[in-house]
Amino acid sequence: MLPKRILDYGKSGNVIREISEYGKQRAREIGPENLYDFSIGNPSVPCPEQVTQTLISLLQTVPAKKLHAYTAAPGDPGVRQAVADYLNGRFGRHCSGDGIYLTAGAAAALAISLTALLNPGEEVILPAPFFSEYVVYTEQAGGVPVIVPCRSDFQLDVDVIERAITEKTRVLLLNSPNNPSGVVFREDTVRAVSQLLARKSRELGHTIYLLSDEPYRELAYDGMEVPYLPNYYPNTLVCNSFSKCLSLAGERLGYVLVPETVENWRDVYAAVCGGGRALGYINVSSLFQFALPACLGQTADLSIYAENRRILVSALKEYGYEMATPDGAFYLYVKALEEDDMAFCKKAREFELLLVPGQAFYYPGYVRVAYCMDTDTIRRALPAFKKLAQAYGK
Amino acid sequence: MLPKRILDYGKSGNVIREISEYGKQRAREIGPENLYDFSIGNPSVPCPEQVTQTLISLLQTVPAKKLHAYTAAPGDPGVRQAVADYLNGRFGRHCSGDGIYLTAGAAAALAISLTALLNPGEEVILPAPFFSEYVVYTEQAGGVPVIVPCRSDFQLDVDVIERAITEKTRVLLLNSPNNPSGVVFREDTVRAVSQLLARKSRELGHTIYLLSDEPYRELAYDGMEVPYLPNYYPNTLVCNSFSKCLSLAGERLGYVLVPETVENWRDVYAAVCGGGRALGYINVSSLFQFALPACLGQTADLSIYAENRRILVSALKEYGYEMATPDGAFYLYVKALEEDDMAFCKKAREFELLLVPGQAFYYPGYVRVAYCMDTDTIRRALPAFKKLAQAYGK
Repeated sequence: MLPKRILDYGKSGNVIREISEYGKQRAREIGPENLYDFSIGNPSVPCPEQVTQTLISLLQTVPAKKLHAYTAAPGDPGVRQAVADYLNGRFGRHCSGDGIYLTAGAAAALAISLTALLNPGEEVILPAPFFSEYVVYTEQAGGVPVIVPCRSDFQLDVDVIERAITEKTRVLLLNSPNNPSGVVFREDTVRAVSQLLARKSRELGHTIYLLSDEPYRELAYDGMEVPYLPNYYPNTLVCNSFSKCLSLAGERLGYVLVPETVENWRDVYAAVCGGGRALGYINVSSLFQFALPACLGQTADLSIYAENRRILVSALKEYGYEMATPDGAFYLYVKALEEDDMAFCKKAREFELLLVPGQAFYYPGYVRVAYCMDTDTIRRALPAFKKLAQAYGK
Repeated sequence: MLPKRILDYGKSGNVIREISEYGKQRAREIGPENLYDFSIGNPSVPCPEQVTQTLISLLQTVPAKKLHAYTAAPGDPGVRQAVADYLNGRFGRHCSGDGIYLTAGAAAALAISLTALLNPGEEVILPAPFFSEYVVYTEQAGGVPVIVPCRSDFQLDVDVIERAITEKTRVLLLNSPNNPSGVVFREDTVRAVSQLLARKSRELGHTIYLLSDEPYRELAYDGMEVPYLPNYYPNTLVCNSFSKCLSLAGERLGYVLVPETVENWRDVYAAVCGGGRALGYINVSSLFQFALPACLGQTADLSIYAENRRILVSALKEYGYEMATPDGAFYLYVKALEEDDMAFCKKAREFELLLVPGQAFYYPGYVRVAYCMDTDTIRRALPAFKKLAQAYGK
């Protein structure tokens, strides 16, 4: 009698959460220092001190009834303009605060954007591997997920995407730097995909939107440039979050950007507002909104992730693991040492290593290793990775 | 090409927001001190000092990477248990933290609950007047709003509700103290409605849920008791918010309670979790979650609303206005002095009075007067209310 799909969402949770529950249990049994939990994408470095000081200062100086009052639904106009100014300065785009809709993180931004764009039965192309909630948000918006694989190097496969486009295609959802692969989509593939979407939109007589989910934009290593998709394809909506770059995952602070290059951008923006309204969003926390302008352009100390990555990539390669090119985010996507990635994760548990099977990202045969943790834990975990490899004769 | 219903939600906004925009414009023209804006339900008293001090203390003492990390999706287990303990102490119900799902305010709680309960085409009975977003959340969840009027004294009309029940009825949504009428539903009508729902659930062979939206529970005057619906009807879900009682409307902090008296409450709770997941909610702001236990049972200084109510009710009655019994919330629902409440609101603007037409609450012929403002503004506005009455020959 309860709606089955919704009940299933609630009962199944997601695989990562289940691993996390196992981890908590196991940590109680053997002591947390003996468990190597590489399953969670929770930032392990604190937010910049500027964030804390700004929050305290607001609480001490702004009258409470103003600080904690409703704002406009898309966010305070001054805050939205500050975000727009920052993005314009950074990427040379032209948007005003009127194109920014503040959201409770990137998850809300995606759920709202898909609600805004999709008519029932319209299709969303999802290049795998990808964050599993994309399927949930697509289904909830009445859409149909169309899952296509990336190439074996985890770059976009433009031919495969072209073959997946039908008259019902409405959105291509891209995530770069990618969770879980850590790969940054290269400029040439981005350019090719943009040309494809432009051509197909003309042929089909309707706009195919590019939805860019980019919470890991600031986490790219070795000077890697992350192409800014509105610079390549005009009908791009950007979903972003300050969860990872400011280490504020629990506070839910992000945005949808509807650039003025989007056809009928005012209508698309109105639909985004309507989507937010329909899903029960009123406004993003007013305290965190007002803190945001002082923190734009700052990041948590991301050098720790770079160091973790350096240590882990070097060691895992030495032990005989293969992986996707680890350009960004705080994930490695490592080839499982047997065909069944679930079985491989189970084997890893024998060495107290918690990994996430690639099936959770619709791209099996791999496992995700999240390295957002103390560098010391990384070092202590290396022997476990080594033993796991040895168990497979490496 | 954009989904029409969603675009309409975004374009039409709601009537109250439009009045608010007019108000901002008008305040610039004539000075805010000359405008009497009774349109907005934004708390006008600050949050308790305890809230501010708790937030500052958390920011100063809890490591940032813990304070701002993801929590479990339904909320931190300790915080949920604290909410359950508080409710159990207050209302003598038996629920554990496992029955509490923290939400971004009551709006999210309602959107999530309706998503959790409704199959496509199932009906939600909405006794009018009511907050217009109930229709949005019902439609978005695939349900059908069935609007029935309250009695002329704005109490529930049990006979009308009975006639509205069909085999598709799934939810009766009640809001007491009521926005906009200010009425508290009396115990005898609550009891009668509960008996009706129990009988109809048996006859139809499926559960009809009572959904209790009660953000104004703490705002009841003259010692008025607000019946706690789970004490009357076992299949009640409670949606609540700290927006009004703690004056934190902009921070989005509330909950859904699934009492253990609900049939298959664990499944219903799982569906609530699934609903939240489907709509893109990850967790409520971790900072505000951790602040909550220290603030449970506190309220902002609500005596100002009581004083505003006393002054306004007394004056308006003297000027010849009729209104619903103003038991609670911070609203009066006043009979328009002409048949068309929109025209009446327009006339009120001639005296710089901003009121919300009853049409916005699906119960025309009345206007809502929100008295959450400085008492001084209330006093200064009285001559305008008097002139408005005089314009209608009162």
